[in-house]
Amino acid sequence: MEAENTPTEILPAHECWRLLRNAPFGRLALCIQGIPGIFPVNFVVEHGTIVFRTSEGTKSRFSEKAPVALETDGTLNDGALVWSVIVHGHAATINQTSELLNTVTLPLHPWESGRKDRFMRLVPETITGRSFTPLQASTHPQGARAPDE
Amino acid sequence: MEAENTPTEILPAHECWRLLRNAPFGRLALCIQGIPGIFPVNFVVEHGTIVFRTSEGTKSRFSEKAPVALETDGTLNDGALVWSVIVHGHAATINQTSELLNTVTLPLHPWESGRKDRFMRLVPETITGRSFTPLQASTHPQGARAPDE
Repeated sequence: MEAENTPTEILPAHECWRLLRNAPFGRLALCIQGIPGIFPVNFVVEHGTIVFRTSEGTKSRFSEKAPVALETDGTLNDGALVWSVIVHGHAATINQTSELLNTVTLPLHPWESGRKDRFMRLVPETITGRSFTPLQASTHPQGARAPDE
Repeated sequence: MEAENTPTEILPAHECWRLLRNAPFGRLALCIQGIPGIFPVNFVVEHGTIVFRTSEGTKSRFSEKAPVALETDGTLNDGALVWSVIVHGHAATINQTSELLNTVTLPLHPWESGRKDRFMRLVPETITGRSFTPLQASTHPQGARAPDE
């Protein structure tokens, strides 16, 4: 069975944190009146929390104290291994002056230029990660589409 | 102002679809009793809908008829341009035999091996996309961390 079904490897927490620390960016999911929203963000890990920078728009307004999930993924060994790390927790705006002063020293430059004046901190409740070997065919070049019926 | 603030470009719908069709995989967000969940999925575009394959677990149970969001992103021009496309809609299991027979001809091989017996279809309600030039510093190598206080 092993040969035809490569198992998913559950990553230990310290490995999840290592991958998070080195991830260039991720996607933040939150619920806005029962409707899921998803937003690309860049972030840094600081003292076991995740700090990201955003504008005064949807992301910050609705994720204030609300549960959020952050996902980031990537490949290792030239694509031979795919990994994904998911953090669940609550995010809140960093308001305290002392915290803000510390935060601005973080190497947290917005991925996208424009006004990103709000710093937010995600305090993780759970962190999970897994890695697996992608199947060859999963690169599924779309050029090989079946003809339309 | 232009020089110091590269604007985000809003992508037209046809360009969003083109990018989606060529994306190897994305992340599906959904709300489970007010808590956001986020899952990497691979998918194919079929006749203006998005078909993905999943197991009988959390993803399929909770996204049945529920609102979902799918995000995928990537780079163009050797990383000079970053793009992100987000689809909002509802996902439902593909049950009809005729639909299933069509679906299995799609080049939709699970990214991760293991039992992924359920095909689901996301019918989009909105599709939005944008592209932007990432700031140099946004690669933020974590090696340049500030010393712990």
